[in-house]
Amino acid sequence: MADSAIVKPQPISGFPEWLPEEKLVEERLLRVIREEFERYAFTPLETAAVERKEVLQAKGVVEKEIYALSRLAAEAEGGDAGTEMALHFDLTVPLARYVAQNFARLVFPFRRYQIQKVWRGERPQAGRFREFYQCDIDIVGNGALGLLADAEIPLVINAIFERVGIGRFLIRINNRKILQGFLEHAGVPDPAFAQALRIVDALEKIGEAKVLVQLENELGLDADVASTILAFVTEEADIAKLKAFDGGPRYQQGVAELAEVIEGLEALGMPPENWTVDLSIARGLDYYTGTVYETRLVDHPEVGSICSGGRYDDLASSFTKQRLPGVGISIGLTRMLSRLFDAGLLTPGPKTPAAVLVTVMDRAQLADCLAIAAELRAAGIATEVYSEPKKLGQQLKYADQKGFRLAVILGEEEARAGRFLLKNLATAEQTDHPRAELVEAVRAQAARAATP
Amino acid sequence: MADSAIVKPQPISGFPEWLPEEKLVEERLLRVIREEFERYAFTPLETAAVERKEVLQAKGVVEKEIYALSRLAAEAEGGDAGTEMALHFDLTVPLARYVAQNFARLVFPFRRYQIQKVWRGERPQAGRFREFYQCDIDIVGNGALGLLADAEIPLVINAIFERVGIGRFLIRINNRKILQGFLEHAGVPDPAFAQALRIVDALEKIGEAKVLVQLENELGLDADVASTILAFVTEEADIAKLKAFDGGPRYQQGVAELAEVIEGLEALGMPPENWTVDLSIARGLDYYTGTVYETRLVDHPEVGSICSGGRYDDLASSFTKQRLPGVGISIGLTRMLSRLFDAGLLTPGPKTPAAVLVTVMDRAQLADCLAIAAELRAAGIATEVYSEPKKLGQQLKYADQKGFRLAVILGEEEARAGRFLLKNLATAEQTDHPRAELVEAVRAQAARAATP
Repeated sequence: MADSAIVKPQPISGFPEWLPEEKLVEERLLRVIREEFERYAFTPLETAAVERKEVLQAKGVVEKEIYALSRLAAEAEGGDAGTEMALHFDLTVPLARYVAQNFARLVFPFRRYQIQKVWRGERPQAGRFREFYQCDIDIVGNGALGLLADAEIPLVINAIFERVGIGRFLIRINNRKILQGFLEHAGVPDPAFAQALRIVDALEKIGEAKVLVQLENELGLDADVASTILAFVTEEADIAKLKAFDGGPRYQQGVAELAEVIEGLEALGMPPENWTVDLSIARGLDYYTGTVYETRLVDHPEVGSICSGGRYDDLASSFTKQRLPGVGISIGLTRMLSRLFDAGLLTPGPKTPAAVLVTVMDRAQLADCLAIAAELRAAGIATEVYSEPKKLGQQLKYADQKGFRLAVILGEEEARAGRFLLKNLATAEQTDHPRAELVEAVRAQAARAATP
Repeated sequence: MADSAIVKPQPISGFPEWLPEEKLVEERLLRVIREEFERYAFTPLETAAVERKEVLQAKGVVEKEIYALSRLAAEAEGGDAGTEMALHFDLTVPLARYVAQNFARLVFPFRRYQIQKVWRGERPQAGRFREFYQCDIDIVGNGALGLLADAEIPLVINAIFERVGIGRFLIRINNRKILQGFLEHAGVPDPAFAQALRIVDALEKIGEAKVLVQLENELGLDADVASTILAFVTEEADIAKLKAFDGGPRYQQGVAELAEVIEGLEALGMPPENWTVDLSIARGLDYYTGTVYETRLVDHPEVGSICSGGRYDDLASSFTKQRLPGVGISIGLTRMLSRLFDAGLLTPGPKTPAAVLVTVMDRAQLADCLAIAAELRAAGIATEVYSEPKKLGQQLKYADQKGFRLAVILGEEEARAGRFLLKNLATAEQTDHPRAELVEAVRAQAARAATP
């Protein structure tokens, strides 16, 4: 087999890949997300990346650009390369299909989390990806599901964003029935609701004036009706005041649901500064039928919504006759991370998950160096041994480049004296310790080196 | 939009999906694998699932069945649906492409781990999947890489399998140069080496008699030469004896390399019962040029190799002129897990990651119940609150079905007395505690409930 020519590797637009120092940040976020999802009793689920085309298209519309799979070998042979399969474009359709398929083997309410890549064959733009992570949680009931579930969802998101440390954030909560009921009460015809909600939902993006114009021009509403709607959604929400207004049955139901969710939030200890009721939040999807959520960074509105979701009446009507109401939320991790890097809210750090580099001065000390590494690893301290005996300066340069916090140095002299040197790579401070106190000394210095 | 007909969801052959109780086992394994990879200073890497076709085919041969991507929407429009992209079939080609592409931004030796799904359009069989997890580590040098790296690889694998608890395992180590040199010395012509190594490597599967027959018939070796080869690879390996034999320069180099790797293994504290030198291990791929590894379960040989890899001279010759020697190993997680489930070596347990279910007896106590859940979660105890007030029996049945270890019960009486009940669901034992001792009581009982 002759060597073929060199294929110059190039990035593929829309398929992001991180450098090691960036991927370590993503891994830390993934770990926090998984831990919090599990702390709130969501169980991990992973579906195949691949679904039958008919499953992805069960709603009757190709709204997303779906990637279909074909067999490359069959293509080359001139045979039929097509398959019945395509890559999933979100985690909701796969959840619906999975729950319908495994209905008898699941226990309801089914609380699952799912952290997977999804693929969309969209034209790539800044911040728009064709392969990206979604981190979803959903609580799915069998036949019915109480509103306590709607209160728990923002708690989980709050726990994650508090730990990640990305500054102040605000989870905005609403109930679509309130606005729908209000529109009904204002005499707007039912078929116009969806469009009206989309216009109102764009308030932050397009501003009040444009909302008025669009309500009037696109829906043919009178100017005073449009003004009433705008005034309603921009006013600060107050549950007592909302309850006092006689907006008809759908409106009243929405307000009652929202009030119950708020009670739950408060009982669960949700910090008041991290959430608010915002009557203009509607979410684009008709899929949502009650509670809706959206999350923004207070000091960085330009980042946009980093997490959104809501309540739906029936998860899997395309796949089963069982009625499965639920509520869920999704973090678009790849997009969020990319924007947090751009905004400087998260900063790539070291290029290694390890804290300690054990340097190797001389082949005569190699076995001792390896024993030191083994001891540190056994104590749970992530450790690398330099790959071969070399000049110390070169090894310390390597340690700096990779971002180790500490270097263990064991020269002939130290080895003979039963001691070792520990270098703090941030401060260049070097200390001398008895070999028997290896783990304690490294632990103490690692803790110091971690807080610059 | 009219409701479309119901699409009956069906599993797709070769694309495995776990039930929650199985996925929790997989998650535990993934966690152990990630932790050990990082403890040994491998940094996480994730490449796009998608590569350019020319990258996947750079070796000039389509050895695997590759899935190519096309745009479903373009298909429907009658346009050109094809793309330049396909799904990766392993993690080695993506690593090579990534290292070549980001060469200037990486620090060498580059130690990375990569845990991702890969896809192969093979005909599905028992234990053969078309979508499955691989968990890879590699240490890649720039120009050169010392043999210490070859000693570290089995240590990582040892740490993982010891923690996972799947019974006795044996990592078998060899160096391809030894067998190649021996063949050379025995007068076997060079072009026959690859085939000879494949035959010898199949020893365990096909038995000694067939190895002899194949060496004679397929390679045309004399019976006594075939016997000498068989005797050599089946004899217990002894480094001193191997060193004493004058097998020519290639043989000697292989033995010297193996001896150095063994020294490293011993200095790093590798438990002697978990590894051995086996001269018959050769691995099928010509890609490997020195050290090779294979791992079996001692009491379950039928499971086959659960982890294998080796040393290669040049990772990325298809993508760059930089010479990048390295060593790596791969755990085929999905296949391994499926076989461990089948063999009963791993058993699915609870259907929830949470330890505690807080029951809800009455709406009057709901706020107290939610406060209890919040307190437990804040203490790091994964907790679920039952979704609505219902009969206690029904809630405890739910707790049993999902596999919670403990249930917190707060009736009107307990609430008034400032106490709560804690039920151990395995023993049905119920204890009574002051509300102020919530976290301590749950911690103590959870520890007891975890050791049946």
